[in-house]
Amino acid sequence: MKKGLFITVEGADGAGKSTQIDFIMKYLQDRGIKSVFTREPGGTKIGEKIRDILLDRENSEMNYMAEALLYAASRAQHVAEVIRPALLEGKAVVCDRFVDSSMAYQGVARGLGESVAVINSYAINDCMPDVTFLLKVDPSVSKRRIREDECDRIEQEADEFHRRVYEGYIELEKKFPDRIIGIDASKGVREIGLEIGKHLERIINAK
Amino acid sequence: MKKGLFITVEGADGAGKSTQIDFIMKYLQDRGIKSVFTREPGGTKIGEKIRDILLDRENSEMNYMAEALLYAASRAQHVAEVIRPALLEGKAVVCDRFVDSSMAYQGVARGLGESVAVINSYAINDCMPDVTFLLKVDPSVSKRRIREDECDRIEQEADEFHRRVYEGYIELEKKFPDRIIGIDASKGVREIGLEIGKHLERIINAK
Repeated sequence: MKKGLFITVEGADGAGKSTQIDFIMKYLQDRGIKSVFTREPGGTKIGEKIRDILLDRENSEMNYMAEALLYAASRAQHVAEVIRPALLEGKAVVCDRFVDSSMAYQGVARGLGESVAVINSYAINDCMPDVTFLLKVDPSVSKRRIREDECDRIEQEADEFHRRVYEGYIELEKKFPDRIIGIDASKGVREIGLEIGKHLERIINAK
Repeated sequence: MKKGLFITVEGADGAGKSTQIDFIMKYLQDRGIKSVFTREPGGTKIGEKIRDILLDRENSEMNYMAEALLYAASRAQHVAEVIRPALLEGKAVVCDRFVDSSMAYQGVARGLGESVAVINSYAINDCMPDVTFLLKVDPSVSKRRIREDECDRIEQEADEFHRRVYEGYIELEKKFPDRIIGIDASKGVREIGLEIGKHLERIINAK
């Protein structure tokens, strides 16, 4: 791979992203593909400071647009400092959440609409994922997998909010069928891994 | 004043903004106009946390777009939590730096151009100042007024950067002549105060 491969994993907290990211990292390693794991919000020293502001339950007065702009700021730093340099070195970058999270959470669930796409187009500066695995599981199921006392500011939102996030993701899947691969995350961990592996094989062979 | 009066003060650090803001606050108080002083970046609990990230000299690796988005995030919170509510109560709001700072520092001096205007249009959501006093002083003069060991991340930029900021402000003054009042800040403090006072009298009488 000359230009690198940018893979993002999306879905609600509790959808099983971490398990499947471990699988993807191992898959790439087994094939001798140099790869970098990273996450959002965060992924850089500055980004982690922004993450602290975003997820702190104390910041309950946060304005929705301020929230969207903070996520985008963290992303701009992340792309410039970590993602783009790794891709230019020909590495694979596996990122836990990226621009689709902002579209689903702030664009759809917070109701900010297209402004989130415009703001993020500046933040990512043409650095879009080659492929995005969307782990789809009913919000009532993913919610049961998170301990309430460990919820951050976003996770603690009402069920209705998480329902809208889910619907936002489904909209994105329909809008970007060439990039976003929807995965039924109610299946077993091994079965999901095999499905993702098949897609990765096809994508890597096509590069 | 039914709708309130939104006054912003702009210019380089060392141009004398604080002194003139004290004068404006006293002017309003003497006329029995309820007024609120605030500043950017910051002005709210969340905004002050963002300010810490922005001005920390340790964060030298900050990407320019991330910087612009952080200023805008702080501004969105500031407008929603402080400025708009005070204006709706009919108060005067006097703000040390606002959207023009982003246009001059990030738009012109950092070279981000029109993207900064677009991002900020979302952040301020139609809450534009009624009047902006721009304190104009040659960058070489304003710089001499700041102690080098007390410089923050932005202040410590090279002379060429501060020259471009100055030029950015002059562009804005030409672009928005109905809103931005340029003041020759090389004059004496008292003389500047009298000039600002005359403008305030006219503006308040016209409300």
